[in-house]
Amino acid sequence: MHSLPDSANKLIDELSRLPGIGRKTAQRLAFHFLNSDNELSHSLSQSLLDIKMKIINCSICHGITEEDPCKICNDPRKNNSVICVVENAYDIFVFEKTNSFSGKYHVLGGALSPLDGIGPDDLNIESLLNRIENDIEVVIATNPSVEGETTALYLSKILGQKGANVTKLARGVPVGSDLEYVDDATLIRALEGRVSV
Amino acid sequence: MHSLPDSANKLIDELSRLPGIGRKTAQRLAFHFLNSDNELSHSLSQSLLDIKMKIINCSICHGITEEDPCKICNDPRKNNSVICVVENAYDIFVFEKTNSFSGKYHVLGGALSPLDGIGPDDLNIESLLNRIENDIEVVIATNPSVEGETTALYLSKILGQKGANVTKLARGVPVGSDLEYVDDATLIRALEGRVSV
Repeated sequence: MHSLPDSANKLIDELSRLPGIGRKTAQRLAFHFLNSDNELSHSLSQSLLDIKMKIINCSICHGITEEDPCKICNDPRKNNSVICVVENAYDIFVFEKTNSFSGKYHVLGGALSPLDGIGPDDLNIESLLNRIENDIEVVIATNPSVEGETTALYLSKILGQKGANVTKLARGVPVGSDLEYVDDATLIRALEGRVSV
Repeated sequence: MHSLPDSANKLIDELSRLPGIGRKTAQRLAFHFLNSDNELSHSLSQSLLDIKMKIINCSICHGITEEDPCKICNDPRKNNSVICVVENAYDIFVFEKTNSFSGKYHVLGGALSPLDGIGPDDLNIESLLNRIENDIEVVIATNPSVEGETTALYLSKILGQKGANVTKLARGVPVGSDLEYVDDATLIRALEGRVSV
């Protein structure tokens, strides 16, 4: 049996190691690159090098940026007295897309997970504490998972001791969903957190 | 609103132009590259350049290869008197995987499609005719689509005139399938092509 040329096999191997891309998709992508003009492969190749070369972590919020401090930390229109704490750099852009949060951010770089050996020292908590001043509000926006909730609980304790006003995202029924398909845990939280109309 | 760094946006744009990859998957991939070590991006970047630099088309069968003629055309164990005609270079490896075809191949580079303006001159038909000698068998293995069948019909005529023994892949019920789910057109072909047991 003759297999594909070595360089094609190598590309397929590398593509199929990416998340959500199986062997079949990798083969299809590799043949797409082979059948397209050079420009497609060259520009993607350069972009892959560029992100590793140009993108750094902001020294204040630990978000991703091409200049330090990042645009958000440098923005005078942003409210310095509210900090939204998120797990990953990507979450910043999830909030920024909504165009409705005017505060700054802090990226933890993950969530507490004793089973995976991730403790408080592995997250950007020290630098968060250094940003806490009097009358500051900290919105904890970790993921609504076990690890996220554990992290939120831990942070609320130590931030409370520093005198910060700690809040967290409301839990409840997602907008546009159907009650029939909402899970029990979410419904219980929505009932507990009911608000007067 | 602050968006992602320019280089990250550029990578996401390029990834989302690939077949089967939407905006969300592209974002997920871009963050996977950002969160992984440099080696992942660098080696994929190099592989993308390598396939465009190293892979050429075989001058005999038009398949993809790193050396010309390709390994299959050069293989003395391959039977010179049977040529399997396929639409795309990838189809060669679909047959080679089965380990049960001992002949050689010829890649047309597509199928006849008057609506898309693809005529006989756009396919590698001239070079196929030049490979035809007396007593050669040509197995037409174009896709079982309208374009593929049209191409098969066209090829069978001109190859027959050159004295080749022209065959094509059997149409019928796929192995391992359930009759309940086989479409009508396939069932009709399977009945027409029934063989004695």
